[in-house]
Amino acid sequence: MKWCRFLAGERVSYGLVDDERVTEVAGSPFEEHAATGTSHPLGRVKLLPPVIPPMLYAAGPNYRGHVEGMARRRGAAPQYPARPEPNFRSVHALIGPEEKIVVPKDCAGAVQPEGQLAVVIGKKARNVSRENALDHVFGYSIGNDISQRDWQRSDRTMFRGKNCDTFKPFGPWIVTDLDPAKFRIIVRHNGAVWEDFSSGDQIWDTATWIQELSRYTTLHPGDVLWMGTQGADGDMVPGDVIEVEISGIGMLRNYVVAEG
Amino acid sequence: MKWCRFLAGERVSYGLVDDERVTEVAGSPFEEHAATGTSHPLGRVKLLPPVIPPMLYAAGPNYRGHVEGMARRRGAAPQYPARPEPNFRSVHALIGPEEKIVVPKDCAGAVQPEGQLAVVIGKKARNVSRENALDHVFGYSIGNDISQRDWQRSDRTMFRGKNCDTFKPFGPWIVTDLDPAKFRIIVRHNGAVWEDFSSGDQIWDTATWIQELSRYTTLHPGDVLWMGTQGADGDMVPGDVIEVEISGIGMLRNYVVAEG
Repeated sequence: MKWCRFLAGERVSYGLVDDERVTEVAGSPFEEHAATGTSHPLGRVKLLPPVIPPMLYAAGPNYRGHVEGMARRRGAAPQYPARPEPNFRSVHALIGPEEKIVVPKDCAGAVQPEGQLAVVIGKKARNVSRENALDHVFGYSIGNDISQRDWQRSDRTMFRGKNCDTFKPFGPWIVTDLDPAKFRIIVRHNGAVWEDFSSGDQIWDTATWIQELSRYTTLHPGDVLWMGTQGADGDMVPGDVIEVEISGIGMLRNYVVAEG
Repeated sequence: MKWCRFLAGERVSYGLVDDERVTEVAGSPFEEHAATGTSHPLGRVKLLPPVIPPMLYAAGPNYRGHVEGMARRRGAAPQYPARPEPNFRSVHALIGPEEKIVVPKDCAGAVQPEGQLAVVIGKKARNVSRENALDHVFGYSIGNDISQRDWQRSDRTMFRGKNCDTFKPFGPWIVTDLDPAKFRIIVRHNGAVWEDFSSGDQIWDTATWIQELSRYTTLHPGDVLWMGTQGADGDMVPGDVIEVEISGIGMLRNYVVAEG
């Protein structure tokens, strides 16, 4: 099933996508819900981030290629993370597909994309085993963890470097019943392929992350975990188009603009 | 006004506290709301965290005493932060007054308290001036930023060190119309005073934090900012009682227990 969240007129609803149509759902996929008799052509609604999570987790360095690429840039030896530890991202920075990534006025350097698999939690998880971890997943979507590298390097926290308004494109929808180890993830910058990698190359896989997180925190329905990226991509400037495509899910396209 | 959030029977509501009674409010203080005709004796309801914020920000090092105390422990020179940059905390770690702080099983060292002023945002804020910043505050409450120092030191992120389930006591209520520079903050461990400091000693004050955050993110109604602590306190073990009192607001008391 393909779940979206959308705006039609002034109403925000969850919906089920099928054959280029969206059927409105009353309620939320994480609670009680029922399909209504109302549907819209997909092209006539505005897709929103498919869920606003209570907590948005980011795996950070979870592919060897990213750790090595970022280290090369700094002229340092790569330091692989010791264990799966997430950071948090701001839910206020989330935007949907086709929306604009706004580069802040006082941002000296460019911003860079990070195409990522997004794992959406469906059931409460606390102290779950690796074997049962994926039973707690609702489905999979696409995230783009926009990063301002100067701020990421200079600042004590990732607040400005990763969490400015519009820095977290997310969507276009959530697809259920897929294997998280078998996604092909492609990042395109103005049509040129910047990254092409497999979710199977993660340092820690989805089940391990859920197991490990659930040792310390309760994962709640609607929580989202972004699983990291492979490469260390180039700069984006206003006017650029950035696309993240994941096999079996779809494509998340956004436009880079300068703050007005 | 003194706003709380509480459980009576099976219903969660916001309420107004007055003379040891809570009047139930329909709706939320951040949206449309109206007092109902129902009230309860304060002692008969269970107080909950006064709001579950969309984003819970933590100022981190915002008092010279804390920076110096933590540096002394590491045997290093104090490093004052260069600018007001928040970290994020997990909203799933929030607990209310009188609740238990659970020390995780695989936690070798003890946990420590950090008594903090909590600033609750009332109005959307984006690019606000320092002069107008406090107009966007709804009110003030109390937070206790429980920290596991071994994990805080060893880990790449603050996930385990600061955000385990129950590590974020918050409450007992939100008080409006106060001056954020004039709070006296007292932390008591089993009745003994561990800290006694003034919110006026912050490195950056509430208005500056709101101004600075709003340059990069939109602050939303219900967002909460914990303003840092002065000291570098001692260890708490199961059986301990920890209280944070702030003049004009009230007292937040919690109990330390071991994970079962």
